[in-house]
Amino acid sequence: MIPVYYLTNDPGRREMLWSGKIDETLKRYNFRLTDDIEETQALITTWGAPLLTEEWLSKMPHLQIVGHAAGSVRPIATPELFQRNITLFSANPLLAETVSEWAVLATLMLQRRVLDYSKFRAGEHANWGGFQSFRDIHDTVIGIWGFGDIAKAYIKRIRAFEPAKILVYSGHASNEELASYGAVKANSFEELLENCDQLHCLTGQTPQNLGMLNAEKLRLLRDGAEIVNCGRPGLIDYDALFNECKSGRLTAMLDVLPGDPAKEPVPLENLPNVIITPHCAGASGRKRYIPWILEQFNRFFSGEKDLPGLVTAERTLTMTIETPNLKKG
Amino acid sequence: MIPVYYLTNDPGRREMLWSGKIDETLKRYNFRLTDDIEETQALITTWGAPLLTEEWLSKMPHLQIVGHAAGSVRPIATPELFQRNITLFSANPLLAETVSEWAVLATLMLQRRVLDYSKFRAGEHANWGGFQSFRDIHDTVIGIWGFGDIAKAYIKRIRAFEPAKILVYSGHASNEELASYGAVKANSFEELLENCDQLHCLTGQTPQNLGMLNAEKLRLLRDGAEIVNCGRPGLIDYDALFNECKSGRLTAMLDVLPGDPAKEPVPLENLPNVIITPHCAGASGRKRYIPWILEQFNRFFSGEKDLPGLVTAERTLTMTIETPNLKKG
Repeated sequence: MIPVYYLTNDPGRREMLWSGKIDETLKRYNFRLTDDIEETQALITTWGAPLLTEEWLSKMPHLQIVGHAAGSVRPIATPELFQRNITLFSANPLLAETVSEWAVLATLMLQRRVLDYSKFRAGEHANWGGFQSFRDIHDTVIGIWGFGDIAKAYIKRIRAFEPAKILVYSGHASNEELASYGAVKANSFEELLENCDQLHCLTGQTPQNLGMLNAEKLRLLRDGAEIVNCGRPGLIDYDALFNECKSGRLTAMLDVLPGDPAKEPVPLENLPNVIITPHCAGASGRKRYIPWILEQFNRFFSGEKDLPGLVTAERTLTMTIETPNLKKG
Repeated sequence: MIPVYYLTNDPGRREMLWSGKIDETLKRYNFRLTDDIEETQALITTWGAPLLTEEWLSKMPHLQIVGHAAGSVRPIATPELFQRNITLFSANPLLAETVSEWAVLATLMLQRRVLDYSKFRAGEHANWGGFQSFRDIHDTVIGIWGFGDIAKAYIKRIRAFEPAKILVYSGHASNEELASYGAVKANSFEELLENCDQLHCLTGQTPQNLGMLNAEKLRLLRDGAEIVNCGRPGLIDYDALFNECKSGRLTAMLDVLPGDPAKEPVPLENLPNVIITPHCAGASGRKRYIPWILEQFNRFFSGEKDLPGLVTAERTLTMTIETPNLKKG
């Protein structure tokens, strides 16, 4: 029985992640959870896990693989981990599936302009009669900035709605891979912005693209275009976005905001054409993470090295960097 | 050039339906629009077209086919039409595609409980921090009452989200056909209600099923279940639905209401856990109807008789009957 250690400093996460399926899966693959960190060969980390420094790694001399039961490995990944040839992967492909559901929801809410005519709150009256038609999804060009796990999971779902075009701007995507997803390549950020009706910001945040969707770039979008962000808030200049939404030229649906919106309301909340959800795009499906990680552990110990969600040392460098956010919106 | 006549008493529909694509398509298939009803061989009808009585049909002695640029043919279909062996079809398959987009929107809004935590209106504050997780779509059983065009178009879209099960109750669906859609059969209405987390009411309205989803049947649904209706309001006892939503046991998203909600607000609008849209589920994509009808005309005059959206005399009898609605909700 291969010992597996579960490491986090946030005991509250257990309820969110645990289910009977974990015991079943441990048994099926001949794993056991251990309380003895020294003997472990496989490590499960999650939100609240420490950075895996040499100090931590030296406590686990037999460690071969780390499965991170969350999205970005940035809070735990270190060069020392890769120097020790330890395999690292995350549940990002599962998280991406859930986040992409939210992105489809955003597509439909914005494209159908539901804010204009629906009854949401008690005592509201739906706009029967005065209602105008909305843009056909067959006439809608979906623009996607980035081509990672979320973008791929989103395209998998939105394709069945047959949008006019799925246009992707990403340095990582080849024409062939895009074609296999039914998507086409935008050759520049500007080409993406000028040619889409709805823009999804799904690229990782790097020092190079911080605030890249600024006032000048937002002006390139068509009148009536929609902005969707369930990715990183730092990609967008939220002050500029506020101005474009306030004028009514653009509308938006956002799952991420700069700063700490729990403590400090943001100006975007005062606009009638902006929908905001509290960073919950990926807030379901978490009980699937650990059983899935155990499956990957089993594949790894059976000799399979090409795991989904695998993180390389190089990839870590291009991953989302938790920098201070540019501006408040 | 085969003459085609466009018949409606509602001149305002033209703007909704017309586009440059119609002229292109007429040219491509060697059709011409005629103002002379007597010579026409093909007829396009839409909302506002008259019932095709013997009086109308006798004006069109060469008529072979009618394409209805709307959903239900009930406002135009007569036994005389079928006695004259005239082929009748409607754009219902296209309408169903659009309506099914709304049904996916409803699935995601309800399953994700967006009303509980989102900022929709100006000045609202999203519930950052206090937010709880929601049911995983992988753990959600989607129940569908009916298996017509909308149900099929909906399943085509929702499958990519991998719900736990798609359970269908319909007298018309075979196990084989359901399996090809990734769905399974409920053997009774009760079995459907007792085993789903979200119920979509998509069956045609008949005298037999009027008000069938009544208080007794609603009680069979699981606590926390969701009701979705973009079909016919008469299927549901809206007073009973009001009581179940008022208690908080059920939530709902409705595109159809009984009575005339434009003139008379309904009690359901006073509830915080009910979303209402003003009968707009199918309100886009209408410019696709006539080009698509012309394509079907071309297939028909080329000898193909198995047209999508084909309406038979028998099917007309089981189609939605525009009866007075049962109760107001």
